Amino acid sequence: MDSENSETHTQVAGVVVENKQVILKKFIDGIPKENDMEIKIEKIQLHPPNNNENDSILVKNLYLSCDPYMRGRMRDFHGSYIPPFVPGQALEGYGVALVVNSDNPDFKPGDFVAGITGWEDYSLIRRTEQLRKITPDDDIPLSFHFGLLGMPGLTAYAGFFEVCSPKKDEYVLVSAASGAVGQLVGQLAKLHGCYVVGSAGSSKKVDLLKNKLGFDEAFNYKDEPDFDAALKRYFPQGIDIYFDNVGGDMLDAALGNMKVFGRIAACGMVSLHSLSDPQNMRNLYNIVIKRIKMQGFVQSDYLDLFPRFLEDVTSYYKQGKIVYIEDVKEGLESGPSALAGLFSGKNVGKQVIRLTHQ
Amino acid sequence: MDSENSETHTQVAGVVVENKQVILKKFIDGIPKENDMEIKIEKIQLHPPNNNENDSILVKNLYLSCDPYMRGRMRDFHGSYIPPFVPGQALEGYGVALVVNSDNPDFKPGDFVAGITGWEDYSLIRRTEQLRKITPDDDIPLSFHFGLLGMPGLTAYAGFFEVCSPKKDEYVLVSAASGAVGQLVGQLAKLHGCYVVGSAGSSKKVDLLKNKLGFDEAFNYKDEPDFDAALKRYFPQGIDIYFDNVGGDMLDAALGNMKVFGRIAACGMVSLHSLSDPQNMRNLYNIVIKRIKMQGFVQSDYLDLFPRFLEDVTSYYKQGKIVYIEDVKEGLESGPSALAGLFSGKNVGKQVIRLTHQ
Repeated sequence: MDSENSETHTQVAGVVVENKQVILKKFIDGIPKENDMEIKIEKIQLHPPNNNENDSILVKNLYLSCDPYMRGRMRDFHGSYIPPFVPGQALEGYGVALVVNSDNPDFKPGDFVAGITGWEDYSLIRRTEQLRKITPDDDIPLSFHFGLLGMPGLTAYAGFFEVCSPKKDEYVLVSAASGAVGQLVGQLAKLHGCYVVGSAGSSKKVDLLKNKLGFDEAFNYKDEPDFDAALKRYFPQGIDIYFDNVGGDMLDAALGNMKVFGRIAACGMVSLHSLSDPQNMRNLYNIVIKRIKMQGFVQSDYLDLFPRFLEDVTSYYKQGKIVYIEDVKEGLESGPSALAGLFSGKNVGKQVIRLTHQ
Repeated sequence: MDSENSETHTQVAGVVVENKQVILKKFIDGIPKENDMEIKIEKIQLHPPNNNENDSILVKNLYLSCDPYMRGRMRDFHGSYIPPFVPGQALEGYGVALVVNSDNPDFKPGDFVAGITGWEDYSLIRRTEQLRKITPDDDIPLSFHFGLLGMPGLTAYAGFFEVCSPKKDEYVLVSAASGAVGQLVGQLAKLHGCYVVGSAGSSKKVDLLKNKLGFDEAFNYKDEPDFDAALKRYFPQGIDIYFDNVGGDMLDAALGNMKVFGRIAACGMVSLHSLSDPQNMRNLYNIVIKRIKMQGFVQSDYLDLFPRFLEDVTSYYKQGKIVYIEDVKEGLESGPSALAGLFSGKNVGKQVIRLTHQ
């Protein structure tokens, strides 16, 4: 196996190939649009790094992940937990890749890796601490390593269990409920004995939530002119836990319908058109009156949970206790529209890009 | 002593006296105004209750407390942790009183009590579970039992230590910093080794904060056209803990200046003109990006801490490690303006009403 990989390595080392990339044209402020990005093709040699940085590896990207947090990296803002992208260069994000070439003794050609890579056919990765080797498993799609079993999965798991402190029989609202994080939150909540209602943006998604993902109820927020009335209908007794992926008006309506000692996991605010736009909040005072805890979090603060998360969720999946819906687009060219589409809810399930290499 | 008290009891029992009361005229929506209340005088007999409710007591009120939470009881809203006042009847609030007459074996005429009583000269109190007996102490003003050593004190103590999880050397912002709660929060934070900045609404209050209450810095928010710029000036490194008594624009500005893993104790939103008015929030997304925990709380959820709080704070006070500033108004007639004045920051320190009985 090693010798075979070495041979492959040698074969490709001198070859010049086209490296297609998705480039951020310039920093943005509002919602990412398809034409904020462009496709660029460079020619590269698949040579070994040979640059005295003995931990860099060259990978061939197989799957890329579209995630809402990436929008934050498209802004000229350096105060977040992750630096912005570099205009003119390829985007970065979670992906699954095959090691082609390696200066790093921990990675060998032929290894499959998951972690942060480039939005391009081939990536030279220097920060290998953001990669982990994965073992292909016929029962687990490779793309699950950045979905159900990756960042969104850990986000759901840590956010629900650690931030929301759920108890059996509690009433749980999940927004963006059919998305990469929401669909797992809802299923974990059901397995935990909670009553779960999801909001989503199309009748197709509502149907998936009720009939495939096992939510007790679901509604299309676009059909609800009054979110407060909708929540009062679905939660006449109030909400114990709101897992918030959207912010904005749904957060405000949820604040008005929380029970005393309710908990809000603030996971994302994908509804905001621009982070600098003001939001009209009418119900913030409920935080005081109802003694609500609202807590922002990112999964990377809970990496110590990763082994337990991986074991639990893999086991649930293999036992058929949870499902995971992906929306797979073909080819790097589909990247800009797929990423932009997240913000208008075009994706049905976890948005995945499958790279097709010529 | 007992026989003496019984004698007093007998003496007053048949006497008809005027009972001056502060009445809520009708439910309000906005900020309490002086003329939302009126003075009414009824004649009452100081007779023993004799009503087969063997836990009721008649008290003569000595000091009453003006607290911002009382505004919530002036609204026609039943979803809070405490029911609204009854229009046409006397307001209720924290006070210190002398027992005149008692059907309850736990209270004897001559006992001093602190707890919930009426805004009137004499109150018949049926819910004695909201009263505690206090022992007069020459070193402790009676009014401290609803201030430094009462609800506002426990609010500061529980909110700071339990909700904010402070660490030495952290940077703390306190709003309404010279108020009943804020002045103790700041002093506890200093004793804990934090750097503390207070905001208040007059140069007199700023002077007290810096020169009497030991805050590291203080500013008059009315002199700051741009709260964000002010906070950047006082916290160039960001804020670890914001103890929020005001909500609104200061909360929004603080959200924009929190450090990663910052904590916000949501104690009150006294700045809101009307709870149903929308607030423009520009910085809520920081809750996600900075992993901020924002938590509402009320002191009554922390009553198990009361003995430790009382011991700690009494000891600090007697050792001269903390001071407590009161703003004492004379006479029940001053009640409506004193209560309304809280919402425009007229009070300098804890607002107290001393009753003068003819």
